[in-house]
Amino acid sequence: MSDPRLLSGVTVVDLTHVLAGPYATMILRNLGARVIKVEPPRTGDDARSFGPFYKDISLYFSAINTGKESIALNLKDAADRAVFEQLLGMADIVTENYRPGTMEKLGYGWDSLRKRFPRLIYGAASGFGHSGPYMHRAAYDMVVQGMGGIMSMTGQPHSPPTRVGISVGDITAGLYLAIGLSAALHKRNSTGAGCKVDIGMLDCQVSILEGAITDFLVAGVVAHPLGARHPSIAPFEVFKTQDMPIVIAAGNDHLFGLLCTALGQPGMAKDARYVTNELRFEHVDALKADIERTLAGAKAADWLDRLDKAGVPSGPLNTVREVAANPQVAARNMIVDVTDPVAGPLKIAGNPIKVSGVPDPTRQPPAPQLNQHHAEIMRMLNAQKKA
Amino acid sequence: MSDPRLLSGVTVVDLTHVLAGPYATMILRNLGARVIKVEPPRTGDDARSFGPFYKDISLYFSAINTGKESIALNLKDAADRAVFEQLLGMADIVTENYRPGTMEKLGYGWDSLRKRFPRLIYGAASGFGHSGPYMHRAAYDMVVQGMGGIMSMTGQPHSPPTRVGISVGDITAGLYLAIGLSAALHKRNSTGAGCKVDIGMLDCQVSILEGAITDFLVAGVVAHPLGARHPSIAPFEVFKTQDMPIVIAAGNDHLFGLLCTALGQPGMAKDARYVTNELRFEHVDALKADIERTLAGAKAADWLDRLDKAGVPSGPLNTVREVAANPQVAARNMIVDVTDPVAGPLKIAGNPIKVSGVPDPTRQPPAPQLNQHHAEIMRMLNAQKKA
Repeated sequence: MSDPRLLSGVTVVDLTHVLAGPYATMILRNLGARVIKVEPPRTGDDARSFGPFYKDISLYFSAINTGKESIALNLKDAADRAVFEQLLGMADIVTENYRPGTMEKLGYGWDSLRKRFPRLIYGAASGFGHSGPYMHRAAYDMVVQGMGGIMSMTGQPHSPPTRVGISVGDITAGLYLAIGLSAALHKRNSTGAGCKVDIGMLDCQVSILEGAITDFLVAGVVAHPLGARHPSIAPFEVFKTQDMPIVIAAGNDHLFGLLCTALGQPGMAKDARYVTNELRFEHVDALKADIERTLAGAKAADWLDRLDKAGVPSGPLNTVREVAANPQVAARNMIVDVTDPVAGPLKIAGNPIKVSGVPDPTRQPPAPQLNQHHAEIMRMLNAQKKA
Repeated sequence: MSDPRLLSGVTVVDLTHVLAGPYATMILRNLGARVIKVEPPRTGDDARSFGPFYKDISLYFSAINTGKESIALNLKDAADRAVFEQLLGMADIVTENYRPGTMEKLGYGWDSLRKRFPRLIYGAASGFGHSGPYMHRAAYDMVVQGMGGIMSMTGQPHSPPTRVGISVGDITAGLYLAIGLSAALHKRNSTGAGCKVDIGMLDCQVSILEGAITDFLVAGVVAHPLGARHPSIAPFEVFKTQDMPIVIAAGNDHLFGLLCTALGQPGMAKDARYVTNELRFEHVDALKADIERTLAGAKAADWLDRLDKAGVPSGPLNTVREVAANPQVAARNMIVDVTDPVAGPLKIAGNPIKVSGVPDPTRQPPAPQLNQHHAEIMRMLNAQKKA
């Protein structure tokens, strides 16, 4: 039987570090690609020194590098460069997230690589992409979160600036890079040629602002933070109950009707202020007060049970503790086991791309120690040279 | 010359509505795929009725459906079903984001489609995926944002619950669906067979929590909102200046040294409390106070200029107004022009996947009016029948 995984047989030579690039190659590996991390000797990927730490290993690093191989190479050393170039010769994809220009300085810019390796696909993630006036500027996630507008829409009204609680700048760029590389693999099946995929983190931030750019440029509306409220749908936010807050998201008139019934307030659905989404949003503060007056009569768990039975989209506000214990998360294999040779048993997030006929293992190999696969990779390259 | 776009020649029959699915097919179209929206007669995609509105059209809909075609079909009507099945016969991909079970009720579940159309790739996005105890539960973005943990990490410390300012639940699922479908196209080149890609929004939320799941399950640490501060790197947050706040992200010792010099405080780099990232994070409040004391001496624009020249990752906190005017956003074609037949000139976000040798147009066709391409699609199907 051949390997059913979507990217089986694909080899990625991975120069990326920290988050955006390694997140992309994590996805490719989850889809079956072989990912060989080429790391600088001694220190390795910077993320190896990022907390949180556990028994001397970086959990930050472990969570996104599981199942990759590692070889330490100094790309300024002639012997190591020869090894690197042999790796490129057998690779389908090379990835990097240096500052633009670094690969050119090393002699590995796309223009030279494409001549020597015409089938090679080159994937780059950087703060601002490989063109434009900001091309050479330094960027980290926080910089593009601030510059790209998402922070201006996140937070409580009039609160201090609020970051999205995850590195949405890096992660979105990693997702877009994985899309570009997968599509480039498809294309190469018909053309036989590689290409360069150039992802800028700031570009990706613009692409996830939903209608906000259009709304400003067409209608002059500047988005601002709304706490937990949706900018155009109501009721679609967080509501207080007797004990804990819950989410209710009644996205259309039908669901609003179901909600009113579940709340024991069928009259509310006929209230002239609430008959359409447009009207409900116009009277959103009154609507919220009406709903919370009823919700105050029982506890969150009780309401969530009633709302679920009534088919009203709703849910709790979970911390990672509850996420980790959620039965749906377990049923979908979204937390998987890893045994690290240094730290012992770990648990990391699973693969959200579920594909028919492809196994979805609940156990994964650990992230590599620095240079762990040196001997094995050298044996492979030598065998290839002889062949 | 053949079309260089990565997904040229790919046809997507698209049953999706609102956001997660249409966001995925927007990406596929930006990569060159032909996307035929199959919409319910009269109302069409629900998103057509979602604000913000401008001259009678939904900007929400326009921003993510540009360049797609539209045909209105009633999938419970025999004649329309015949048309739909002809479309499936010529499609590479069918996408849907109904509640799980809906396609089966229509007779178009994966198990029946795969028999009739063995090359067809089936892409589904749903709240919880097509398996597990929550499979049939209703979900919208807000529900999975609350349930998946991201809201528990977003906001000011002790502030009310805070939503990420965009629909990160839908958008992340759309990105993962686009990855799965692109990789499935690659796979089909060697196997000749389609597959089903099943994306659950909750799964995707778990996959973007970075180390938070691992940190809790291994070390017992529950993540919580930190305002605009990174959870393990310092200085890496928002700082006050004389007038406006700015982002500074000095992600390693070298950058911290550059920052101290740029601030005119070279001694700070040698302060025993600040010599490593671990120590800086331990003393992050003192560090912030020290930095802000210096920043109070000049205005944001002045500091950003100095920090940029010094190579310190830094930037402003932009609203969409500044994003729209940013020269890098313009240089990367991240805002493109559309002429809508009803509303006139619009501007929407561009395509962040930049590929060598592939044009990156600054003008795009408009989103379709409901059923706009009916005659054209019927002609194509009839021509095919004769051939």
